[in-house]
Amino acid sequence: MHIASMIGSHPHVQGNTNDTLIRAIEETYACAATCRICADACLGEAMVADLSQCIRLNLDCADVCAATAAVAGRRTGSNEAVIKWMLKVCAEACAACAAECEHHAEMHEHCRICAEHCRRCEQACRAAAETITPSGM
Amino acid sequence: MHIASMIGSHPHVQGNTNDTLIRAIEETYACAATCRICADACLGEAMVADLSQCIRLNLDCADVCAATAAVAGRRTGSNEAVIKWMLKVCAEACAACAAECEHHAEMHEHCRICAEHCRRCEQACRAAAETITPSGM
Amino acid sequence: MHIASMIGSHPHVQGNTNDTLIRAIEETYACAATCRICADACLGEAMVADLSQCIRLNLDCADVCAATAAVAGRRTGSNEAVIKWMLKVCAEACAACAAECEHHAEMHEHCRICAEHCRRCEQACRAAAETITPSGM
Amino acid sequence: MHIASMIGSHPHVQGNTNDTLIRAIEETYACAATCRICADACLGEAMVADLSQCIRLNLDCADVCAATAAVAGRRTGSNEAVIKWMLKVCAEACAACAAECEHHAEMHEHCRICAEHCRRCEQACRAAAETITPSGM
Repeated sequence: MHIASMIGSHPHVQGNTNDTLIRAIEETYACAATCRICADACLGEAMVADLSQCIRLNLDCADVCAATAAVAGRRTGSNEAVIKWMLKVCAEACAACAAECEHHAEMHEHCRICAEHCRRCEQACRAAAETITPSGM
Repeated sequence: MHIASMIGSHPHVQGNTNDTLIRAIEETYACAATCRICADACLGEAMVADLSQCIRLNLDCADVCAATAAVAGRRTGSNEAVIKWMLKVCAEACAACAAECEHHAEMHEHCRICAEHCRRCEQACRAAAETITPSGM
Repeated sequence: MHIASMIGSHPHVQGNTNDTLIRAIEETYACAATCRICADACLGEAMVADLSQCIRLNLDCADVCAATAAVAGRRTGSNEAVIKWMLKVCAEACAACAAECEHHAEMHEHCRICAEHCRRCEQACRAAAETITPSGM
Repeated sequence: MHIASMIGSHPHVQGNTNDTLIRAIEETYACAATCRICADACLGEAMVADLSQCIRLNLDCADVCAATAAVAGRRTGSNEAVIKWMLKVCAEACAACAAECEHHAEMHEHCRICAEHCRRCEQACRAAAETITPSGM
């Protein structure tokens, strides 16, 4: 996948990649896109009033995932403590969004897919957070 | 790909997708990620002073691609004129970034990959812009 | 304002600022925030189903404004054609959002304020676009 | 300020605002803009190679601040645990960026201003995090 080849060509990385972290970066980018589209699809449903909490959690999850992807993708210098924290918060945002989308999964295919992506992203973020030990923490 | 299945499940779309537009959405999401990582990889190079214009165009391209992806991915209501404009500007931002990255492609693998992605995204955005005819334009 | 002092201290600017452009950067940052909150406030209204187009235009406008602010705020190197285009598209996104919010301005104070901000941002972007002449255009 | 009037007009808030949280939202929006411009100003410095860690922390801080502002600004439904976490991570990202910018404050006016903004944002986020007690935490 292109994230792996891009990060693998970073001058400070030189192919020596943290594959668990790369997987989390891929999942956060994909989950941000999924959640943004799920928010819009929910907004288009006739029963949108019943989906306002779902839309809110979709948008929150998209924003947190996008920031996590950007921060975790940087390999120049270091900011390991912030990366680790963001991965953990991102897992929480994904878990909250997944739990809500799961309630609507039988009725709305977009919520079913979104819940699956959020659960996958949640797990990838938790696994990646475990691989990072900031100096001084 | 997950963008297609998400948009295909939107209540106003119901499987009747514009595949050229979906391709552009996929490319803009991927290109935003690529450009953001290329900016960081350039920043880590010993010769970073020679890459400042490249980093600037990477960051501009990432910002424009991310906004284009978000806007073009919405199918509730309509905002076709803005989608069409954003696709066109995105093609320009990608072309500018590609032209600069191509200068560094032999020296830096990340610039080589990034230039390729930007060219692909540029073409996908131009093709998608052609498919959209805003009412009243 | 802090945008002016930040850009004024850029090594390539050295106090020689384009004040019309700085005003547009300030307005796009402010308008992005306003539109994002208006989308959320609309989502919380009992009559949310009547506001789905408004929410969509709010989110589109927020995304375009945020990208415009980021791109127009960079003074290292150059990307003038993309800045000029983004300012023009941003004016269109603001005009579309303002026109919709104006329909709800009597009923919803957040739409009234948002429409005003969008109109101000639209004008600031149009004025700033006039000040930029990309080489070769 | 416009954030206060926008959130004050949200149907679920109705003027009953958390002013400490609103202050944090204002600071995170302003800090995101400041950090983004500081990254670009550092990139334009002749000694950019000495500023690569500063640019990286600027960009990380901008991304985290922007996501925090978006998430903390939503009042429809609830996601209090994620807001509290994001405010805490944002304070860490601001502290890291401020500490680095302070090293360059005598040489670069943009770093001096940015360090001040980051410290103010750090404090506003810590104060706001204290006001939020998620149910079940």
